Amino acid sequence: MSRYKMILDLDTGIDDALALAYAIGHDDIDLIGIIASYGNNLMPVTAANSLNLLDLLGAKDVPVFHGAAHSTTTEDFDTMPVSKLIHGKNGVGNVDVPKSKRQVEQQSGIDFLIESAHQYQEKLIYLPTGPLTNLALALKKDPAIGQLIGQTTLMGGALTVPGNVTPFTEANINQDPEAANTVFKEQERLTMVGLDVTLRTLLTKKETAAWRALGSKKAQLYADIMDFYIDAYATLDIDKRGAALHDPLAVAVAVQPDYIDTLPLNMIVTTDRESGDYGRTIGDTSKLLEPVTSKAAILVDQDRFVADFQKMMLKVLA
Amino acid sequence: MSRYKMILDLDTGIDDALALAYAIGHDDIDLIGIIASYGNNLMPVTAANSLNLLDLLGAKDVPVFHGAAHSTTTEDFDTMPVSKLIHGKNGVGNVDVPKSKRQVEQQSGIDFLIESAHQYQEKLIYLPTGPLTNLALALKKDPAIGQLIGQTTLMGGALTVPGNVTPFTEANINQDPEAANTVFKEQERLTMVGLDVTLRTLLTKKETAAWRALGSKKAQLYADIMDFYIDAYATLDIDKRGAALHDPLAVAVAVQPDYIDTLPLNMIVTTDRESGDYGRTIGDTSKLLEPVTSKAAILVDQDRFVADFQKMMLKVLA
Repeated sequence: MSRYKMILDLDTGIDDALALAYAIGHDDIDLIGIIASYGNNLMPVTAANSLNLLDLLGAKDVPVFHGAAHSTTTEDFDTMPVSKLIHGKNGVGNVDVPKSKRQVEQQSGIDFLIESAHQYQEKLIYLPTGPLTNLALALKKDPAIGQLIGQTTLMGGALTVPGNVTPFTEANINQDPEAANTVFKEQERLTMVGLDVTLRTLLTKKETAAWRALGSKKAQLYADIMDFYIDAYATLDIDKRGAALHDPLAVAVAVQPDYIDTLPLNMIVTTDRESGDYGRTIGDTSKLLEPVTSKAAILVDQDRFVADFQKMMLKVLA
Repeated sequence: MSRYKMILDLDTGIDDALALAYAIGHDDIDLIGIIASYGNNLMPVTAANSLNLLDLLGAKDVPVFHGAAHSTTTEDFDTMPVSKLIHGKNGVGNVDVPKSKRQVEQQSGIDFLIESAHQYQEKLIYLPTGPLTNLALALKKDPAIGQLIGQTTLMGGALTVPGNVTPFTEANINQDPEAANTVFKEQERLTMVGLDVTLRTLLTKKETAAWRALGSKKAQLYADIMDFYIDAYATLDIDKRGAALHDPLAVAVAVQPDYIDTLPLNMIVTTDRESGDYGRTIGDTSKLLEPVTSKAAILVDQDRFVADFQKMMLKVLA
């Protein structure tokens, strides 16, 4: 029996696709559902991507729920041009993943999260890899989940390094800083896995070549998807040495925290648009001497994680 | 015999006065000289303050050297109005400290630093509590000191919390970001003791009342000086609970590193005035996977430090 129930909140997305595969493959994780978010693409697209990938990997029993289609401060959402360059127009590197015959659930992702928080409590890991809109909406609807969810491990933010949208702001936080600030203030047992660590975990075409050599359809498709991402990292000059394993690192450390060192720190997200640092994840000076409810990943055992990630992918894609 | 030779680079300044007292009192520290910097006041004023305080504390054999009178990118320097509010017009809380009859040394502080680096090498601790101009000038004149100085522990910067001049910039770094960036790039074995930790170490009038009760002239003057600082912290709404022990914390951790947890991180100081974050101390994304030459203090055992600091002051001021 798995030690943890996990909900992934994905804006799938190439590294989201890796996170999904990693969660399916990990013995300690019972993936009980995926909530779709806008972010790397439109919410309905990321929902469909998650369904398709789940089916591709044989996880046809994992339900997918619709989450928010736009931020808490906007009326709609358009995919950023740079997202299409990094993740492809369809979110998965312009690769044709076979369409799932399954449907997205009728229940809203927000309600599924609230229900699961009450049902599983300390056993539940909630893991958002995109904007924090869904969790902020759930907290607004039922503030009790701030204490109920066992742990929330998010991919996003940047504390000790610059952001990747502005010098202060990381892409996921940037989508909805107001929602992120709500989460940082109200969600207990929060771990931020940000650019501080994820930019150190790089995958190369050497690893994807080994996936492809497995010979399976799913391995070939995942290698094609990941090669698009590695090429984008090089072309856009994000990193020519490889592509960052942002989202799967968050999944890994949620169940194996010894991959990272963390800093206990009460953080806020700046929501003053005039301040010059809108969307920055930073320590809350007014709470430096108060009990700590969140921590930030600041170091990672990158070589061990990348090696273990590769082992996991070779298992899942075989 | 003391374990370390220490040079303090001070812009004295009230918390500089505490750092000076702490260094004089510590058995492991042989204070071989003070270099004066502009910063909390004009350089000639901070030099005189250091001489006066050394004599007050009976350390009449410690020489004081003139350092830079302004930043590496300006032609002159005026004390910032806020500095006068925090440190008093004379730098030491408008308290009349008896004037030393000694003179500042003829040798320049820059040359004294270079000479000491060659003479003492790994035994030398260089500890700037103001702008990093003097060290940058020394590095320019003799780049070898970047490897020679045993350790450089600076009070300044802010990594995981906002700055105190702008949301990004701490006051010491703000005086000369270009010099600071030179230091972060070229000075090995660098420890940044920034607002991340110093804002957690607060002294109150309860402690200064105990100084005053010692009955000595030096205790009374130091209590008057420190009370000015505590009042300024309250009046300016920096912190109403007490005043931060910025500079003495840096001295303490230089010889007792177990007061702090540090993050090994290659850092830069942003020097692009158009970037919106001029003067920010932040991780260097391009060097996340390279050998690390600097570290930042991120946590401090504040209760133990404040208690030990108080013991030290009661000894020095008795």
